Amino acid sequence: MRSFCSLTRNIVVKPKLNPQLTFRTFTSTTPHHKYQTPTQKKDKIMSTTTTLKGQPLDRQVLDSMLRRRMFYTPSFEIYNGVAGLYDYGPPGCALQANVIDLWRKHFVLEEDMLELDCTALTPAEVLQTSGHVEKFADWMCKDPKNGDIMRADHFVEDILESRLRGDKEARGVKVVEEEEDPSKKKKKKKTKGIEAVKLDDTVVQEYEEILAKIDNYNGEELGQLIKKYEMKNPETGMEPSAPVAFNLMFQTAIGPSSNTPGYLRPETAQGQFLNFAKLLEYNQQQMPFASASIGKSYRNEISPRGGLLRVREFLMAEIEHFVDPEGGKKHERFNDVKDVELVLLNRHTQLAGKTDVEKMAIGKAVENGTVDNETLGYFLARIQLFLAKIGVDQSKVRFRQHMANEMAHYAADCWDAELHTSSGWVECVGCADRSAYDLSVHAKKTGAALMVRQRLDTPISVDEWQVDLDKKKFGPKFKKDGKAVEAAIEALSQDKLESLAKDLKDNGKIIIEVDGIADGKAEVGADLIKIELRTRVENTREYTPNVIEPSFGIGRILYALMEHNYWTRGSEGGDEARGVLSFPPIVAPTKVLLVPLSSHESFKPFLKQISYKLRSMGISSRIDDSSASIGKRYSRNDELGTPLGITVDFQSVNDSTFTLRDRDSTKQVRASQEKILAAIKELVDGTKVWADIEKELPIFEGQEADLPTR
Amino acid sequence: MRSFCSLTRNIVVKPKLNPQLTFRTFTSTTPHHKYQTPTQKKDKIMSTTTTLKGQPLDRQVLDSMLRRRMFYTPSFEIYNGVAGLYDYGPPGCALQANVIDLWRKHFVLEEDMLELDCTALTPAEVLQTSGHVEKFADWMCKDPKNGDIMRADHFVEDILESRLRGDKEARGVKVVEEEEDPSKKKKKKKTKGIEAVKLDDTVVQEYEEILAKIDNYNGEELGQLIKKYEMKNPETGMEPSAPVAFNLMFQTAIGPSSNTPGYLRPETAQGQFLNFAKLLEYNQQQMPFASASIGKSYRNEISPRGGLLRVREFLMAEIEHFVDPEGGKKHERFNDVKDVELVLLNRHTQLAGKTDVEKMAIGKAVENGTVDNETLGYFLARIQLFLAKIGVDQSKVRFRQHMANEMAHYAADCWDAELHTSSGWVECVGCADRSAYDLSVHAKKTGAALMVRQRLDTPISVDEWQVDLDKKKFGPKFKKDGKAVEAAIEALSQDKLESLAKDLKDNGKIIIEVDGIADGKAEVGADLIKIELRTRVENTREYTPNVIEPSFGIGRILYALMEHNYWTRGSEGGDEARGVLSFPPIVAPTKVLLVPLSSHESFKPFLKQISYKLRSMGISSRIDDSSASIGKRYSRNDELGTPLGITVDFQSVNDSTFTLRDRDSTKQVRASQEKILAAIKELVDGTKVWADIEKELPIFEGQEADLPTR
Repeated sequence: MRSFCSLTRNIVVKPKLNPQLTFRTFTSTTPHHKYQTPTQKKDKIMSTTTTLKGQPLDRQVLDSMLRRRMFYTPSFEIYNGVAGLYDYGPPGCALQANVIDLWRKHFVLEEDMLELDCTALTPAEVLQTSGHVEKFADWMCKDPKNGDIMRADHFVEDILESRLRGDKEARGVKVVEEEEDPSKKKKKKKTKGIEAVKLDDTVVQEYEEILAKIDNYNGEELGQLIKKYEMKNPETGMEPSAPVAFNLMFQTAIGPSSNTPGYLRPETAQGQFLNFAKLLEYNQQQMPFASASIGKSYRNEISPRGGLLRVREFLMAEIEHFVDPEGGKKHERFNDVKDVELVLLNRHTQLAGKTDVEKMAIGKAVENGTVDNETLGYFLARIQLFLAKIGVDQSKVRFRQHMANEMAHYAADCWDAELHTSSGWVECVGCADRSAYDLSVHAKKTGAALMVRQRLDTPISVDEWQVDLDKKKFGPKFKKDGKAVEAAIEALSQDKLESLAKDLKDNGKIIIEVDGIADGKAEVGADLIKIELRTRVENTREYTPNVIEPSFGIGRILYALMEHNYWTRGSEGGDEARGVLSFPPIVAPTKVLLVPLSSHESFKPFLKQISYKLRSMGISSRIDDSSASIGKRYSRNDELGTPLGITVDFQSVNDSTFTLRDRDSTKQVRASQEKILAAIKELVDGTKVWADIEKELPIFEGQEADLPTR
Repeated sequence: MRSFCSLTRNIVVKPKLNPQLTFRTFTSTTPHHKYQTPTQKKDKIMSTTTTLKGQPLDRQVLDSMLRRRMFYTPSFEIYNGVAGLYDYGPPGCALQANVIDLWRKHFVLEEDMLELDCTALTPAEVLQTSGHVEKFADWMCKDPKNGDIMRADHFVEDILESRLRGDKEARGVKVVEEEEDPSKKKKKKKTKGIEAVKLDDTVVQEYEEILAKIDNYNGEELGQLIKKYEMKNPETGMEPSAPVAFNLMFQTAIGPSSNTPGYLRPETAQGQFLNFAKLLEYNQQQMPFASASIGKSYRNEISPRGGLLRVREFLMAEIEHFVDPEGGKKHERFNDVKDVELVLLNRHTQLAGKTDVEKMAIGKAVENGTVDNETLGYFLARIQLFLAKIGVDQSKVRFRQHMANEMAHYAADCWDAELHTSSGWVECVGCADRSAYDLSVHAKKTGAALMVRQRLDTPISVDEWQVDLDKKKFGPKFKKDGKAVEAAIEALSQDKLESLAKDLKDNGKIIIEVDGIADGKAEVGADLIKIELRTRVENTREYTPNVIEPSFGIGRILYALMEHNYWTRGSEGGDEARGVLSFPPIVAPTKVLLVPLSSHESFKPFLKQISYKLRSMGISSRIDDSSASIGKRYSRNDELGTPLGITVDFQSVNDSTFTLRDRDSTKQVRASQEKILAAIKELVDGTKVWADIEKELPIFEGQEADLPTR
């Protein structure tokens, strides 16, 4: 079964996300078992989330702002929506486009990766080979009375947590009420209250142990738990049906007949693997190299909740770095990143039931074996640099290593970049060493040569036992068995040949076991066969590359980015607190807001000119000439994350000076158009920060009296 | 039935594309009839295609080059591929990303359009309302013997064209052999030779008339033609089954139960319409405004051929510009574009069976009524400017107006931007005035208020017949029928009320027809009812906006762009002609190729430095340090469309000068790094052309002796 875990559930103490929630680490050969210690779980439940300024984060307020400002919105809302489908509105789209643009520059252009745009429609055969058809599934069960469909692991979790909560109430422990999930519009199914029932201490312990390893149970085991602990659906009082596997891929038919069943891809990776031979050719046979894809993938979640963190259609950005498995997987540019420090949560710590992290330079982590190899380490560092660049809160990033039983059997090592949000630690980037698995299975299935033929600079000599047969004598001697005897000889191993050579020398004949002939063996004399140790020179070497795969869930990163950059400006006049999204200029949806003091005609030419100049500088701007007060207009754009604002007022008309406002401090400077534009360019390029500008240009005070700073 | 027509067919004189092939102009209320004059068809078949330099275009050679260089490649090729699915490789991806980037700047940023990213997964209900579930279909028929599935209109076309060809052969007219479609790998089904059978002159004429209006037949009519002319599948000699409608949407199920049937969207537009109310709110209730979406759409073509021109998964970029239907659909910026000249093929010319185009400024075209309104004209001009910017051959663009019977009944006007390719004129951008259709049907279905409430500056007075009822007396008088009588009165029209007012005045009573009561009518006396003409003042006006929709098929534009910019450099040494793709720098996949003369160590620091500097200037470059000759390396990059090349040689090591090469002329200049980089920036920004650079920097000759210019 695949590795996705619960994001939210019916009854929870606090919305949470399984920290091992993975993007795609399932394996088609070993089920993906995950282990979660109670300590981790506790740690996760208890953790509080704060805004950028350290205020307690009110997710409901944030989500309502994000929807009001159309960062995102439930799809098909006028048709009552569909769970797990969201649209991005204008600021969400711009944020996404900026993050994708940076991703392309940071990864694809920086390293000449070979970008591919493959189709989402995928014939079933491809996903049969990759193992998705058989294994990419969750366990679901059904209520026999009302037909409700539930994820079996979620159901078990919900019931046990509910009972533990009832136990706590019975023991007089105060239980914090869960916040309503603000991303869901339709009312949540409520259980019929929590009954305050005290449990035996041993039962409490059993429940806690089950919850700790909930991701470790298969369908049968989940079914046993449901029976053993007499779990009923609180909605109906009925025991749900036995769990059955539900494949998470969306199925369709390609073409007018049903000859070509197909699926929507659950990941972009397979398209990259299938093109390997062409990519290698395009890369002029040079290794190592990487391909990359940015595109939508689809997973038919059984019952998605949790807003943008668990959706059925999502944007992925994936890299497949193909590397020679021999030579320790070194990376040419590793030295460039070796001093980058990462917060690491290694597998040994987790196995000891702890979540203590270590801050360590990646150079040291590879050197001391915490991270398996240079190439993997290189990408972990590059991921860290990327996340920092787009504005992820550095105190809310950690790299968590998969434990041995969490990884596919062929994987050498795997780390997730997790970002902390109000749903706990969320896996946003997976970075796995997938070995040669995918290329091997597709090559085996199709016969395509998905491998590298390397010319050896220094040819190598191979000592080898070789066989010469006198085939002319074979027919007369073995008659119809001739072919079978020959085949048996050809199949002999080097070890066997070595011992047979000795026999032949000692006895002048050998006995060969041959399936399917009369005696089951054949005697071959020295007149028919020669076995000699010879030296062969090899000029080429063939190998199937290993794959290091950094895989980004863009929607999750965007959501974390919004939470990490959110804070509220306190109000001094008793008004509501005002939301601010302090995105770095480089990813901010709009860089500059242009505000005329009023709708006076004399302001218009200035707005047009400045907006034209900004556009030709490649800097996005928006004019807000609505009738709202300047403060209100700035306030609206603080919520949109616009970092800079220019006001055009009557003084502008007289002396062509303008004020430039900083979103975060609400401070303003006033200078000529030329100086203001130069300052904007430096701020957007990141060569200067606001403090530099304040030193260079005269401070301006006024206008924004109605918008207090914090 | 929808409006898609044949792109290629089993037996054709020349691969061709129906010139009216539309992206999405089907309507759910009137079938989309299209009319195609024989003249047009002839014009299309006979037209020859040339390269950028006027050479005859060999599509097979071009397609083979595009695939070798991985501009595109059939998806899942190692699994034998799936018709109509293609992947873009590295240069195709970069070209696509550059075109999309320009599109976003040219349309979205330039006009503050509200971009949306909506899901492709769409619940069935939405597409039922829009009419797609019922009408978005092609006619297909089946061979009863071998089960082959064919598009009915293609089948009829193929048979008739084959017979006409046979007739020509019998009459001794030379028939040009069709080129094999190079984008198809699997061998094409061949008919068993063309029989040279002479037809009666009247039959020839009938066939030609049928072919001329092939897109006008429905399934039943196609079936009648098949029977009447005894058309048999040449593969089996059998008459195919009667045509049945085949819906072109990919179907799937959303969620674990089958409660939510869904489709993959066939267009991005519906998501934009459904978000209208939120977009209007986001835009602070200001009209007009436009939304835009860039994303994949899906159409399950019955039997797609024609390479990138007819695919099952494709990238669209669509704009929905919402405008007040009153006031002539003026556009604020129309004046900025009024002098842009367009090549127009209007509907009157087409109805007269001609294809003569006129070149006309859009200002004049709107003024004289050729184009319906300013907003539509504005977008046609903006489309023209966009196509010119990305490098479409200006001699291969025309805007073709839909004929009256081609358009939806609600549409005011519709024009397609068609690009000429080796498949004939291909619709690449549709630009329709869709009136209020979509917003109206979704509002009606869901009850959502998809309209604009406009505050009137000057309130308007409305004279209106109003009814006052004495409801207290209604009960005693009408008993159980009271409600029904009241409802019947409320439903009366203004006209009816006017005449009833007269009756009431004259007779002191009126007779009302009431469904469902004993007599079917009721008498109401003046003691119960008053009907008076009163004046009501309205401060707001409500209206459903009209939509102008420019809709871009990105894949088709990319393919046309590749054809339009392709040419071959003749060889003087008897070698093969070498392909060149003369993309404008702004869309070229890579802007600069860096070539060291050899693998000498001393060149490496220069390559690293220049490549770093180019990257920080935002200019993409690639190093080719392979062992091939300089000429070969440049030649490879001419095929990739790289406009500029820098060579690092031993002189560079001595004096830090470098040569800069122009792809199109193969001329080189030599100068300092600083000057070369400045020249590159100007060329890429488009502020200078190569001729300017040649005048400013010293010409360099040498090195490329092995690569002759044309």
